[in-house]
Amino acid sequence: MKDFETKVPDGDTRERAVCRSCGFVDYQNPKIVAGAVVSHAGKILLCRRAIEPRAGFWTLPAGFLEAHEQPEEGALREVREEACAEVVLEGLIGIYTVARLSQVQMFFRARFAGDVSFAVGEETLEVAMFAWEDIPWAEIAFPSVTWTLERWKAGVDGMADLDRFSVRV
Amino acid sequence: MKDFETKVPDGDTRERAVCRSCGFVDYQNPKIVAGAVVSHAGKILLCRRAIEPRAGFWTLPAGFLEAHEQPEEGALREVREEACAEVVLEGLIGIYTVARLSQVQMFFRARFAGDVSFAVGEETLEVAMFAWEDIPWAEIAFPSVTWTLERWKAGVDGMADLDRFSVRV
Repeated sequence: MKDFETKVPDGDTRERAVCRSCGFVDYQNPKIVAGAVVSHAGKILLCRRAIEPRAGFWTLPAGFLEAHEQPEEGALREVREEACAEVVLEGLIGIYTVARLSQVQMFFRARFAGDVSFAVGEETLEVAMFAWEDIPWAEIAFPSVTWTLERWKAGVDGMADLDRFSVRV
Repeated sequence: MKDFETKVPDGDTRERAVCRSCGFVDYQNPKIVAGAVVSHAGKILLCRRAIEPRAGFWTLPAGFLEAHEQPEEGALREVREEACAEVVLEGLIGIYTVARLSQVQMFFRARFAGDVSFAVGEETLEVAMFAWEDIPWAEIAFPSVTWTLERWKAGVDGMADLDRFSVRV
C-alpha cells in the first residue's frame, strides 16, 4: 500500500505526493492525446465509441500517447487500433489544452495510405465516412472533436488562422 | 512499499505495471517540456544551468509542464522562474519529440512584455542576452536547444518550413 505524504522533493520547488517508504514522487504531468481527421473525397472518418466515457457517441480516432511515441506515431496507432486504417499524416490541425483534465490534445490531417479501407477496431462499435453535412453533431463524443472538425474545415476552405492553432479550453 | 506486477488492466490493451495491493496503474506517458526563445533587438536570452543534468551549460528557459497548464503557460512560468522575466509569446517555433526520454518539447517565440528586464532565477547561475554570433554553441546544454535556436533563426530569416516543425529525434 502506498503511503504518500505531501512535501517538496529535493531539488524541486513545489509540493508533491511522495511515498514515505520508497521515496517515489508522484509527479502529476499533463498527458498528450493524439488523433487524426482522416478524409477522402470530402468525407471524414468517424468512430462510434464502444467504451466509456461517452460510449455510443462518435469521435475522431484518438487516444493517449504511449511512452517513447511521437504525437504523429500515436495518431497513426490510434487510427490503426480504432478504425483498422493505414493513413498518412499531412499536418497539424490544432492543439487543444483541456486544462481541467490536464490533457494536451493534438490532431492531425490525414489521408488513406492506399485504398480507402477501414473496419471496426478495438474500442469501436462502428466506423463510417461522413460528408460534412451529414456529421452527427448532436452525437459527437467530445467538444475537442467538434473544434477539430471545424478547424479542419476552415483549413480546407483556406481560412485557418495558423497563429492561433493552440487553444486553452 | 509498492508491489507491482505486470498485467493488462481492465479496459486496456497492453501490459502495465499494476500495484497488487491497491490496483494503482503506473501508466507511463510522455511528458511535455515547454520553453521559450526570448529575443530583443536580435539578441537571445539564455540561462546557465545551476542544476544537473548539464549544470554550468547554457539553455533556453524551459521545463516540465505542470498539471492543468497549457504549454504556453508552462513556457511563461519557466521564463519567470529561471530568468525572472515577464514575456509575451508570439508563436510556436517547433515541437521536438525526444523519443528516448519520452519527452515532447514545445518551444515558443517570445518578446519582453515591457522593458528588457531579467535576473538570475531558480535553477540558474547566470542569465544573459546573446547576439547570434556570440551564442556559446559548444556550451549549450541540450541538442533541442540548438535545434530550436536554428529554427528560430530560420523563422527570423523567413525560411521556416512550417509543415515540418514537429520532429522526432
